[in-house]
Amino acid sequence: MELITLETALNTGWILLGAALVFFMQAGFAMVETGFTRAKNAGNIIMKNLMDFCLGTPIFWLIGFGIMFGGTSKFIGGLDLFTDAGGDWATLIFQTVFCATSATIVSGAMAERTKFSAYCIYSMIISAVIYPISGHWIWGGGWLAQLGFHDFAGSAAVHMVGGVAAFVGAAILGPRIGKYGKDGKARAIPGHSLTLGALGVFILWFCWFGFNGCSTVALTGGADETAARVFVTTNLAAAVATVTVMCVTWVRYKKPDVSMTLNGTLAGLVAVTAGCDVVTPAGAAIIGIVAGFAVVFGIEFIDQKIKVDDPVGAVGVHGLCGALGTLLTGLLAYYTGNDVTRMGLLYGGGFRFLGVQALGVVAVVAWVAVTMTVVFTLLKKTIGLRVSKAEELMGLDKPEHGLTSAYADFMPVVSVLGTEAGEAQAIAAVGSAAVPPEAPVEPAKAVPVTRVSGEGAPSMHKVVVITRQSRFEALKNAMSAIGVTGMTLTNVAGCGQQKGAAEYYRGVPVDVMLLPKIKLEIVVSAIPVEKVVDAARKALYTGHIGDGKIFVYDVADVVKVRTGEHGFDALQDEE
Amino acid sequence: MELITLETALNTGWILLGAALVFFMQAGFAMVETGFTRAKNAGNIIMKNLMDFCLGTPIFWLIGFGIMFGGTSKFIGGLDLFTDAGGDWATLIFQTVFCATSATIVSGAMAERTKFSAYCIYSMIISAVIYPISGHWIWGGGWLAQLGFHDFAGSAAVHMVGGVAAFVGAAILGPRIGKYGKDGKARAIPGHSLTLGALGVFILWFCWFGFNGCSTVALTGGADETAARVFVTTNLAAAVATVTVMCVTWVRYKKPDVSMTLNGTLAGLVAVTAGCDVVTPAGAAIIGIVAGFAVVFGIEFIDQKIKVDDPVGAVGVHGLCGALGTLLTGLLAYYTGNDVTRMGLLYGGGFRFLGVQALGVVAVVAWVAVTMTVVFTLLKKTIGLRVSKAEELMGLDKPEHGLTSAYADFMPVVSVLGTEAGEAQAIAAVGSAAVPPEAPVEPAKAVPVTRVSGEGAPSMHKVVVITRQSRFEALKNAMSAIGVTGMTLTNVAGCGQQKGAAEYYRGVPVDVMLLPKIKLEIVVSAIPVEKVVDAARKALYTGHIGDGKIFVYDVADVVKVRTGEHGFDALQDEE
Amino acid sequence: MELITLETALNTGWILLGAALVFFMQAGFAMVETGFTRAKNAGNIIMKNLMDFCLGTPIFWLIGFGIMFGGTSKFIGGLDLFTDAGGDWATLIFQTVFCATSATIVSGAMAERTKFSAYCIYSMIISAVIYPISGHWIWGGGWLAQLGFHDFAGSAAVHMVGGVAAFVGAAILGPRIGKYGKDGKARAIPGHSLTLGALGVFILWFCWFGFNGCSTVALTGGADETAARVFVTTNLAAAVATVTVMCVTWVRYKKPDVSMTLNGTLAGLVAVTAGCDVVTPAGAAIIGIVAGFAVVFGIEFIDQKIKVDDPVGAVGVHGLCGALGTLLTGLLAYYTGNDVTRMGLLYGGGFRFLGVQALGVVAVVAWVAVTMTVVFTLLKKTIGLRVSKAEELMGLDKPEHGLTSAYADFMPVVSVLGTEAGEAQAIAAVGSAAVPPEAPVEPAKAVPVTRVSGEGAPSMHKVVVITRQSRFEALKNAMSAIGVTGMTLTNVAGCGQQKGAAEYYRGVPVDVMLLPKIKLEIVVSAIPVEKVVDAARKALYTGHIGDGKIFVYDVADVVKVRTGEHGFDALQDEE
Repeated sequence: MELITLETALNTGWILLGAALVFFMQAGFAMVETGFTRAKNAGNIIMKNLMDFCLGTPIFWLIGFGIMFGGTSKFIGGLDLFTDAGGDWATLIFQTVFCATSATIVSGAMAERTKFSAYCIYSMIISAVIYPISGHWIWGGGWLAQLGFHDFAGSAAVHMVGGVAAFVGAAILGPRIGKYGKDGKARAIPGHSLTLGALGVFILWFCWFGFNGCSTVALTGGADETAARVFVTTNLAAAVATVTVMCVTWVRYKKPDVSMTLNGTLAGLVAVTAGCDVVTPAGAAIIGIVAGFAVVFGIEFIDQKIKVDDPVGAVGVHGLCGALGTLLTGLLAYYTGNDVTRMGLLYGGGFRFLGVQALGVVAVVAWVAVTMTVVFTLLKKTIGLRVSKAEELMGLDKPEHGLTSAYADFMPVVSVLGTEAGEAQAIAAVGSAAVPPEAPVEPAKAVPVTRVSGEGAPSMHKVVVITRQSRFEALKNAMSAIGVTGMTLTNVAGCGQQKGAAEYYRGVPVDVMLLPKIKLEIVVSAIPVEKVVDAARKALYTGHIGDGKIFVYDVADVVKVRTGEHGFDALQDEE
Repeated sequence: MELITLETALNTGWILLGAALVFFMQAGFAMVETGFTRAKNAGNIIMKNLMDFCLGTPIFWLIGFGIMFGGTSKFIGGLDLFTDAGGDWATLIFQTVFCATSATIVSGAMAERTKFSAYCIYSMIISAVIYPISGHWIWGGGWLAQLGFHDFAGSAAVHMVGGVAAFVGAAILGPRIGKYGKDGKARAIPGHSLTLGALGVFILWFCWFGFNGCSTVALTGGADETAARVFVTTNLAAAVATVTVMCVTWVRYKKPDVSMTLNGTLAGLVAVTAGCDVVTPAGAAIIGIVAGFAVVFGIEFIDQKIKVDDPVGAVGVHGLCGALGTLLTGLLAYYTGNDVTRMGLLYGGGFRFLGVQALGVVAVVAWVAVTMTVVFTLLKKTIGLRVSKAEELMGLDKPEHGLTSAYADFMPVVSVLGTEAGEAQAIAAVGSAAVPPEAPVEPAKAVPVTRVSGEGAPSMHKVVVITRQSRFEALKNAMSAIGVTGMTLTNVAGCGQQKGAAEYYRGVPVDVMLLPKIKLEIVVSAIPVEKVVDAARKALYTGHIGDGKIFVYDVADVVKVRTGEHGFDALQDEE
Repeated sequence: MELITLETALNTGWILLGAALVFFMQAGFAMVETGFTRAKNAGNIIMKNLMDFCLGTPIFWLIGFGIMFGGTSKFIGGLDLFTDAGGDWATLIFQTVFCATSATIVSGAMAERTKFSAYCIYSMIISAVIYPISGHWIWGGGWLAQLGFHDFAGSAAVHMVGGVAAFVGAAILGPRIGKYGKDGKARAIPGHSLTLGALGVFILWFCWFGFNGCSTVALTGGADETAARVFVTTNLAAAVATVTVMCVTWVRYKKPDVSMTLNGTLAGLVAVTAGCDVVTPAGAAIIGIVAGFAVVFGIEFIDQKIKVDDPVGAVGVHGLCGALGTLLTGLLAYYTGNDVTRMGLLYGGGFRFLGVQALGVVAVVAWVAVTMTVVFTLLKKTIGLRVSKAEELMGLDKPEHGLTSAYADFMPVVSVLGTEAGEAQAIAAVGSAAVPPEAPVEPAKAVPVTRVSGEGAPSMHKVVVITRQSRFEALKNAMSAIGVTGMTLTNVAGCGQQKGAAEYYRGVPVDVMLLPKIKLEIVVSAIPVEKVVDAARKALYTGHIGDGKIFVYDVADVVKVRTGEHGFDALQDEE
């Protein structure tokens, strides 16, 4: 046996280790995206993450790999259907998992409102054509490669491509219902599991050692030293970016923000990816600091100024920091084997290298922005890109996958935070033709609720409303409008006879006898109970089964703990 | 230093990487199995997953390894107590983690009802004897190996062994209470965390690169090319199987099913395991398609026709697809180093190779089915295989491990879906001698609830029942029988004095002051309140402390939002 | 190319694999620590785990690495600011991730009550100075190394350092509110997700193959055999320790304890770390058994006798088993290359080696205990080490990070278990100057609740209290004192107008309209309703907004299911 074959074996092993680690990033993305969004969409997000890998893998084998690496053309590779990668199987699997990473970034930005079928089609297109073409420019021997563009492991080729596609997708989709209030201001929609989100970030960081470190695609011929340095710079940039974001949020929001800090980790990782092989540790730390600032202000800008709703911050993390990292390589490249033409500006390199980096960023952004706009617009005009408002309010798990809940034993609390304006609009849209018929109701006359308790004291009543979770906001507003200041909300289940089409779980029909409902309890005295009942009914009426019921009970007494007031007085809150 | 020792070092490193990855599959199995089952059993499932590895490891070292690899006999290895594997420590650890994989498959199929002590004993027996003997046939130089049977990384040796044992175990145990209705039809019992289940699938896929890829047990001498191709085929089969299942469920159940699709991924991985080193990428894709169809129809068949209750689909995934993958190798083997005798039938190989594959499948199925039937039957007859009905209804965490909940800060909703028939039977069994004493009660006479509201209108009452979670189904049926069509269910906690034996958590007694209860609220007018109280009492009565209480309240008014009806009329639902 | 460079490449690859795996232990620690504690602190625990790695990484690069490995002094290395590790990048990253492991151990023991800012400062100090100095003694060529102290992968250097620091920190902090009852006895405070905790343990075990196995820092020159043996001994010790703990808890607590068994796994891993390269598999099994006993009795001793509150058992696992493992190496070392001076006592080595091991343990414990006592005491005297009682009761997520909940869609149940005494003290402290004003209330006179139901029967009333979760314990005790034996607890949300400073989530203000509350329902007849209202008010009164309200309703009837009693009689429980 010769030395050369042993060398090849070692290098192949290194690439395969990298492939396994980069594959595992899918788990990281799935956990981050599902953890940072709401429980009612968890199953859908899992499916999208799973499918972009599972659709991307055969598509990239079928066509994408050839377009990226086939031929020597400047702009596009060739056709190499069902490629065998010239027998270089290690390269095929390594490139496949990189392609899938790019595709999966988009699902986070488009989460909680995108139609599953449309997402599947998008996913196939980016893996077949869009990623491979810009990938050919950068890594396939295309025009950017020929100019000396340096993107070691894919700040631009992978992350920025994903981030730009994410921005276009989220912009064309529009924000989630309730993301922006009537005043146009962004509202927080907290994720349902920060622990899963954090786990996802740790998984991604772990896998990034493969993403960057194994991108040497060799360990011999000095590549081992490069790989080791890549581990150091990658780790340092991530750590410093995390600390930076913690400090920035501590100053700006008064307290160190958990989920933004987790985004900071990813920002550092994305930004250092382009130059991790050529920057010094100090350079990596600088990249981390820049990425930390960029991701906080970038996410705020996108969220609050441009008003593109990106639930997990994918655009800020992958798009913005991917571009920044590519540019910073032009400033900070140092380990270039004494090749001064690729040296960063700060180390005495010229403007040409920085210019090439900038040109690459502009070209790739333009390519992806234009093509993805076409793709998403076509999808929107044909099969539709977004689920209906009713489906979105319900959560995508049920209408898209027939899944009552991804957490069957826990009844998720209605996600009412941050839904006021949008909810009201949605209800208006859904129930526009269904104004409650005033004439036949006349609840004020009909309800004989004035059963006074004898002593001439003002009577007190408890009004209990049991209705759909999605009506909470509308009901709360209606109550507020008539002066009700306090309510108690309980999550309950309505048990009724199941009608209509069954849902399937693993092929077995589900007896959905328990429907999630909310119960709102309001105790009033000064405000006439008729007024409360009437206002509640108007707020809830759509004319469909399931609008709910309103119950009225007598209350014998009320005591306010703080003041000791009771009866009528106890109910005159300012709290 | 010589080249050969460097070669050995590289190959050892590759095997050790594989061992670490295959170990980590335990995490994947634990997450899949716990995520696909109910929260009340989560601690128990974790323990079973942990213990089959922890019992299997010393047992395999003590006896199993020798039986599998000792000696050159055709049917069984030798005795090599406390083996040092001839100093080949890498092989010892690599084989240990494979053995544990086989054992752990079974816990999923037997989840939610198996006695912990019986499971521990089963686990030791499969690791000590059953897996090692068929393993000797296939990988230890036994008769199947001599015939040319090809099972590269263990579709048959590992997965099919686990899958068949899982089938036998689940069949002998019988289905979970409530899995099959009175009509005999299968009912869905959804898992409590699809996100954890999905995480488990991603972990398994990641680790499968070690399971299959590192089964070359070398990187030199051309093994690097094989390993790389194994990565490609393994990945492609998994991706294609996932897409196939998504499509099949979309057609069959109208919507793409999340948890079945996740099973599809595993099905593809299992099926490609036998032939991943010899099939082409196209062959792997075909295996993925076949596995995708097989797993959906297989799980349906087992669940709905054979009526063996396998909560996580382990039999379909590991048993069925393990067998299929072994057979398909006989059809699709291509990279055989020009050895036509091992070439697949479709590529010009003969029937002999396919026949050997079929013979191997039959022999191993027979071996495992017979021995496991003996083992589980003996366990059933001696210490018992299944927990009591009361323990099963309560969930195994508490009776088996003294764990009030694996999620102490979240009160799990009663898992009432899919329990009707079984629950009723269980209650009948538990409370058979405890029919509520009719004579002394006479609630119809005793309860003075006819406090009419004056105006001659029919009175309305709210009946509130607070009782055990496990009685929900019985109560619902009783209410349905007397014409009550709507109820509201709330999960509450009953606070009472703790009596009897304390539970321990990490050695410290737990003050269980909060017991999970359900509160059912029913408002009636046409149906006499006495009838409701009476029916409820009969449904709930067992004569034990904790049967619950029934409260009756006056209702001043009810309004139905959709129709505007109120009072008596509002309660005459068809909804 | 020469053989030697290929050898270097292979060895570098092995170290880098180890670095990635040891990094990933951070995910394991994060999951164990958050899973074993309460949901209301989950975000805070994630942040602490993240920050000790992210602060430790740059600090260790800046100063720690130099102190550990710079120079040849016996007691301390040198100053090597912003080290490049002499170009040995692989060693730099490998040592960085080990340092961070030591730091992160402490967060578990100090969980649920430590101020975030103080924790960040501690974390920087241990990474900069404390760990590197004892690390220099052991691994940096210092006095212990020169004496022949053997700590292969860091039972002492990493785990014991972390465990001792954890003990000092937890002791100085004092126990969590409610951990010890009025009787001084320890009380259980169960973790909020044993599934995440178990996942963390599996991740740690997986990564330990890198921690121990890759600590050969080479694969060539016979190191491959050592690495393989390390895999075997590490795995076996973990498995045997797990089984041991399961058996011990089964005997002591009557049932196999889930979370203690998970601790057992870690105990075995920690204990075998010092000698994994020199012990036989049988030796590893013995270490596992000893560690299993030690961790159970050690945790009990610390928890119940010394009364240091260590929520996750970090002191028992890392401190105690780290020390034990180091000592056991002196007894059980066997594979020493025939160097009798390092052979274990049981294999014919002398007392000198065992003595050196003992000396090392004592010296390192003393070093860490003294310095950490200084550090934590200084922190306590200056910026403060512990959050306020009110913040602790609320959970640290909200006051420290402005995070309403790490699980926004699930309303965590109040963590009332194990809080009685501490809670009462905290309430006394908070509301000491705020005794409810007796005079103006006179609820007994004021409340006209004697609306008897006509027939001369004793009246029955339902008293409903809606108040803060943290008041549950106080209220329960007050009710118990007046003879109320049963209550029903429901988790509800109070909806009110938001006042005061907004919280931020990712830079966007959160409309906290829903505040978690509890609703307690009590039905009484014999006990006068006035007495209940009065006692409740006294228990709840603090004079602050949010004290809650008490509602009184008439009850028409009550039936006790078990006895058939109704009305007054149904309420005279002994249950």
